[in-house]
Amino acid sequence: MRATIMYRAGDVRVENVPDARLIEPTDALITITRACICGSDLWPYKELQASETGRRMGHEAIGVVEAVGREVRFLKADDVVVMPFAYSDGTCEFCHEGLPTSCVHGGFFGVGGIADGAQAEALRVPQADGTLFALPVGRDDALMPSLLTLSDVMGTGHHAAVSARVRHGKSAAIIGDGAVGLCGVIAAKRLGAEQIIVLGRHADRIALAKKFGATDVVSERGDQAVERVRELTHGFGAHSVLECVGSEDAMQTAMGIVRAGGAVGRVGVPHYQTIPGAGEAMFFGNITVSGGPAPVRAYIQELLPDILEGRIEPGRVFDREIGLDEVPDGYRAMDERKSLKVMIRP
Amino acid sequence: MRATIMYRAGDVRVENVPDARLIEPTDALITITRACICGSDLWPYKELQASETGRRMGHEAIGVVEAVGREVRFLKADDVVVMPFAYSDGTCEFCHEGLPTSCVHGGFFGVGGIADGAQAEALRVPQADGTLFALPVGRDDALMPSLLTLSDVMGTGHHAAVSARVRHGKSAAIIGDGAVGLCGVIAAKRLGAEQIIVLGRHADRIALAKKFGATDVVSERGDQAVERVRELTHGFGAHSVLECVGSEDAMQTAMGIVRAGGAVGRVGVPHYQTIPGAGEAMFFGNITVSGGPAPVRAYIQELLPDILEGRIEPGRVFDREIGLDEVPDGYRAMDERKSLKVMIRP
Repeated sequence: MRATIMYRAGDVRVENVPDARLIEPTDALITITRACICGSDLWPYKELQASETGRRMGHEAIGVVEAVGREVRFLKADDVVVMPFAYSDGTCEFCHEGLPTSCVHGGFFGVGGIADGAQAEALRVPQADGTLFALPVGRDDALMPSLLTLSDVMGTGHHAAVSARVRHGKSAAIIGDGAVGLCGVIAAKRLGAEQIIVLGRHADRIALAKKFGATDVVSERGDQAVERVRELTHGFGAHSVLECVGSEDAMQTAMGIVRAGGAVGRVGVPHYQTIPGAGEAMFFGNITVSGGPAPVRAYIQELLPDILEGRIEPGRVFDREIGLDEVPDGYRAMDERKSLKVMIRP
Repeated sequence: MRATIMYRAGDVRVENVPDARLIEPTDALITITRACICGSDLWPYKELQASETGRRMGHEAIGVVEAVGREVRFLKADDVVVMPFAYSDGTCEFCHEGLPTSCVHGGFFGVGGIADGAQAEALRVPQADGTLFALPVGRDDALMPSLLTLSDVMGTGHHAAVSARVRHGKSAAIIGDGAVGLCGVIAAKRLGAEQIIVLGRHADRIALAKKFGATDVVSERGDQAVERVRELTHGFGAHSVLECVGSEDAMQTAMGIVRAGGAVGRVGVPHYQTIPGAGEAMFFGNITVSGGPAPVRAYIQELLPDILEGRIEPGRVFDREIGLDEVPDGYRAMDERKSLKVMIRP
């Protein structure tokens, strides 16, 4: 079968690899019908050290179940399923607490661990019962782009909003106009935020943010962005800040625009070691910092009806569709900001 | 009148000062009937730079209203009141949101600002309507010690528990066996925590923690304390960690013992600049850090009935009672850990 392998920063290839197959009795084997490239895939695309074996890439997918191991009880062949970016057993203490990303038998797809990547024709899914979510739609349903976002970006935007404690009638600021940031706008709107400020500077993305519910746009950066958000919020800052980038600058801005008593929900993998002002400034402002890898599996049940019934359309973040062999071009387009988010149809 | 002045680290004196009086129309003048020395007063007792004027000390009090300014509507002479450690107008956006410590017209007592200290015979209280809480008891009620803790330590322990998201049936670990930590034990118990682990090493304080509801005691420090708490929690750490010290070591321990998906509620004024592991470790564990100066004024309404009806007895943290002239001895006793918390009857 064909699969995507990254050998080092900037070197992505689609190659023939041994067919995916069941290994553990808790596995499922799925044919990938939709996958995509994630903003977080661009970090290794910039930084990955060279290796001979490379890394199998991709952690977002919709697929069709081909076969299941003998201990799989809740899935069967031909089920159309969404695959979260993390696998989880669905039964441990953390899964029961709604945190499958900390599952004691869990892990992540496409990061070089025991699970391979989803930018491929097929994939072995560990802990299939706890991981995959069977969808009540056919394999080519028109809602596929939005359903695909349940594997990561929509759940991640929602996690940013939940972690930032978005509340009805209050203000939310979203840092980042990538796919996660835009889904953060959807999530903030969905949870009832009255003022939704998006910080970003790409005209097409900002236009989409406005369609999703953003009420204000801040295109400045750094201290000027902080000043502008404060102007927009009576000088106090935003009740909720969704940090959807992961850079040191983004976190600095987040801590600068959060209001006393407010919360920063961060979902961008941190490329920094410290939280600015984590001592006295954060303390005296009673500021909360929360977030991490989104437990997207735990959010599907809540978000799915809104997609099925058309109340939210996160699939609009996809602005390009490619076949598997074009994946290297897809990485390039996203890295050069020529594409917001690329969908793959293997 | 007599009042406590700290001139530099270790130099506390009780001296004659001009009588307290009304200045603003929103002020109240109170006679102090109970005050106390706070663990946080020991920081300047160790560190305060010398000055000629010194600092008027004390931020916890119960008093009797002597006079009110012409704009004070909710208080009258002879009211018995509890005075939170911060003053606040009770009407601004932050007060309405339950965060009077960020009041736009607020400030703190006994830190060298415009408000004087409560370790005195009398005190001018700014923003009296928003600050003082009239108690339904006489001035010498037997519950005075517990009621006095509503001015700081009980509300602060409660804030640590709320910030650490203590939940019914879950685990909570309390770092610090000072008065705030012990009130944190009360708060964790009151909010339904099933396992309550206290980290401390003073036999008498630990005995009190057990009376307040602690189920486990960890007397180790540093890495050994982290290991021990993990042993007590199936290897996972505590759902909620109440950081009631403020030192770098305490915060390091807090981040080491909090469970994935858990929260650290910190109420010790931070004597550190960074949160250990604030980048990847905190992020990948979906760990929340929250807390700050407790909005104790906002908590009085909730906590008061439990004191009046005897369900909680935070006043047991006082182990010594002195007159105003003995205040320097009181500082010494607390600094040398000979006393847990000293009550002053001016």
